[in-house]
Amino acid sequence: MTKSDRGRRAPSLEHVAGNGLINRRALLGTGITLAGAAGAGAVATGAAAEPVQNGKWSMEFGGLTPAIQSPSPFEKAVTRTLSNPNNEPRNSHARTPHHLLAGTITPNGQHFSINHAGIPNIDPAQHKLVIHGMVKQPMEFTLESLSRYPLVTRTAFVECAGNSAPMFSNEPIQTTAQNIHGLVSNSEWAGVPLSVLLDEAGIDPKAKWVLAEGADAHLLSRSIPTKKMYSDAIVAIYQNGERLMPGNGYPMRLLVPGYQGNMNVKFLRRLKAVEQPAYTYFETKAYSQILPDGRTMRFNFLMQVKSFITAPSFGHTMKGPGFYAISGVAYSGAGRIAKVMVSADGGKSWGEAALQGPINPQAFTRFTMPWKWDGQPAVLMSRAWDETGAAQPLRADFVAARGQTKTPVTNPLAFPNQHYNSMTNWAIGANGEIKHVYV
Amino acid sequence: MTKSDRGRRAPSLEHVAGNGLINRRALLGTGITLAGAAGAGAVATGAAAEPVQNGKWSMEFGGLTPAIQSPSPFEKAVTRTLSNPNNEPRNSHARTPHHLLAGTITPNGQHFSINHAGIPNIDPAQHKLVIHGMVKQPMEFTLESLSRYPLVTRTAFVECAGNSAPMFSNEPIQTTAQNIHGLVSNSEWAGVPLSVLLDEAGIDPKAKWVLAEGADAHLLSRSIPTKKMYSDAIVAIYQNGERLMPGNGYPMRLLVPGYQGNMNVKFLRRLKAVEQPAYTYFETKAYSQILPDGRTMRFNFLMQVKSFITAPSFGHTMKGPGFYAISGVAYSGAGRIAKVMVSADGGKSWGEAALQGPINPQAFTRFTMPWKWDGQPAVLMSRAWDETGAAQPLRADFVAARGQTKTPVTNPLAFPNQHYNSMTNWAIGANGEIKHVYV
Repeated sequence: MTKSDRGRRAPSLEHVAGNGLINRRALLGTGITLAGAAGAGAVATGAAAEPVQNGKWSMEFGGLTPAIQSPSPFEKAVTRTLSNPNNEPRNSHARTPHHLLAGTITPNGQHFSINHAGIPNIDPAQHKLVIHGMVKQPMEFTLESLSRYPLVTRTAFVECAGNSAPMFSNEPIQTTAQNIHGLVSNSEWAGVPLSVLLDEAGIDPKAKWVLAEGADAHLLSRSIPTKKMYSDAIVAIYQNGERLMPGNGYPMRLLVPGYQGNMNVKFLRRLKAVEQPAYTYFETKAYSQILPDGRTMRFNFLMQVKSFITAPSFGHTMKGPGFYAISGVAYSGAGRIAKVMVSADGGKSWGEAALQGPINPQAFTRFTMPWKWDGQPAVLMSRAWDETGAAQPLRADFVAARGQTKTPVTNPLAFPNQHYNSMTNWAIGANGEIKHVYV
Repeated sequence: MTKSDRGRRAPSLEHVAGNGLINRRALLGTGITLAGAAGAGAVATGAAAEPVQNGKWSMEFGGLTPAIQSPSPFEKAVTRTLSNPNNEPRNSHARTPHHLLAGTITPNGQHFSINHAGIPNIDPAQHKLVIHGMVKQPMEFTLESLSRYPLVTRTAFVECAGNSAPMFSNEPIQTTAQNIHGLVSNSEWAGVPLSVLLDEAGIDPKAKWVLAEGADAHLLSRSIPTKKMYSDAIVAIYQNGERLMPGNGYPMRLLVPGYQGNMNVKFLRRLKAVEQPAYTYFETKAYSQILPDGRTMRFNFLMQVKSFITAPSFGHTMKGPGFYAISGVAYSGAGRIAKVMVSADGGKSWGEAALQGPINPQAFTRFTMPWKWDGQPAVLMSRAWDETGAAQPLRADFVAARGQTKTPVTNPLAFPNQHYNSMTNWAIGANGEIKHVYV
């Protein structure tokens, strides 16, 4: 459009799918007036000459600029939910409030955290990482010595294998995206490539596995293929610019992009080069999956392609008919997100969402879709594809292969509960309420 | 290399410039053993069989997983420095601790903040953004109505025009990269494109400028070219995934990527479309620059290409001869960083640093260079080029054009003090001490 066209025309909305999904390019400089078209999003002011009113905060000197800043007191609801708020001697989960966030970076305060034996308060001057086993020369690294290497930077999600476990229920559980999908987060990590460290120790070519062990009281350990270590793994020592959060592995953790969360061993203290996997508790019992036919899936590392809508979603209330943005996150352990399709009519028709770049491999990609809600019942869905061509499975196919549980779940450890990557659907009621539904 | 080569050879280091700068590819899988070569970075353990010692944190159940997590108590030194810790009725500066950070994202707690009249505690339900002036239809937006638009995501630095002002001193001031360069930070911002909002209001093609005003007690205001607004400006409502920090403009701010910090008006309450700039205090007095010939440079918006080494830097102490990583940030308001050169011999020879991708326009790019320090005096320097071909100027050229001040500076408002983008040099002494020097 030319400059003289600005604001002069209001072209009709180009629908890309049923029930109000609008072309994702519709808002990019084409002069569509959402507010003018529907009365939502903005209203005209009566006093054009000097329409701005002073709030009391414009009339008085403001507050202190603190040494470390934190969110506004008006954002108190933006907080992780805790499964063990009194730190009883069992595991703890803190879930990321996805339904209250935007963009792709998870702020450090809100990154999910699972701790099987509490959070160790590690003195970095006392902590050591040892590389030993089938190596020419055992090596010992401190936070200081790791900091002498040129660090590489990777934006990557970390996802617990048990994230989205509530979706295995045979009835849709009425809760937020945080409570369903809050065990995945996305950060910029900086650290030292394992290829450099294993080369320094001189790993034996026969050592096809590396046992990684953390310094928490459980000494959580997992066996990682040496091939993955050489491909893209790092020992991370920074998270979104600053040292790791205590609940995310301070002072150092393994990062194996795209693999099950607890393989990214926190509080990393040991890497032992070995010929065979160690069959530890955390890889044979706690993070294996029992299939409907009774067999167990072990060493199933990859977190597969997934997406979920964060807004509108359960816990939000629609403010009447009009324009809304559908927004969510997509990610795949196998690589980059290639495409996200969105439906507003329960899957009858689909439109392609806009992806916010840069699109990084094994990292969150934010997708958006403009939507004109007519005030009638609607069902919002998203489905993602990654660059390998893999798509999120349909629920019927997924459940047939992987099973489901009956609600109420009497045993919270009941299998199956891992690697759920089918779709999440939000039903919008005529009253503006949002429910979790299966379609 | 083949797998069987791993750790079997220690090729000689390929030097790319004088005084120990090593080829940036040297550490990527070529089997160079930094520790073995120099005794730094790692030491061999004596007990290969079971070399791992338990810390006390491995022997007891750990601490609580909190609702919002914060850094380890061992990281207390990582904090912004304050120019007005008692909130006296004047401006306040909080500077980012670059010498203690890595990667490219500035964590929200550590993002720099300058407040001329304290930080307003704004109730987002009461705050409104008005678009008026030369528009067909004045419009009013709330945080809720802005959230109905598909948000775009941009990783961008924001830099105060007065960042690096200590570098105008005719003698190098002995202080940290934080105190010199701490008024720049880098975040992922999410918000609504101005092109969409100005189109909705129907801006008059004759309105070549937009006056942006904040809701703080100073009602800080700046005139922005309409062309820039349509190019890449957004009204940002999220910062690294969560709502803006109060000191960074909660609940909404203007983001004009690459332009002077205070044009990114915080607490944004008004955008008035006008024919001519408003010549406000903050654009004619506080953020204009007096040149050596007595003329004043006004409306000089672009923050030009710049880099500085964050490690090793003033405030660090070298731990003896051996291997180190030289690391720093580079950025340009004109676009992407194309190249960073590093010198360890005060500019006599230069090697090209590795850039950590993805390289985003108007955003921090982290550069790294492996370095073998021989324990003798050395001077570390960095120089950046952007994709337009612009380079950081040499200090002599910069000072000739822009002036300098005599130390001690008796008047802290003495000009010149803005848009410094020449190089920063750190001298390493044989005793391991690091000083700030001009070369």
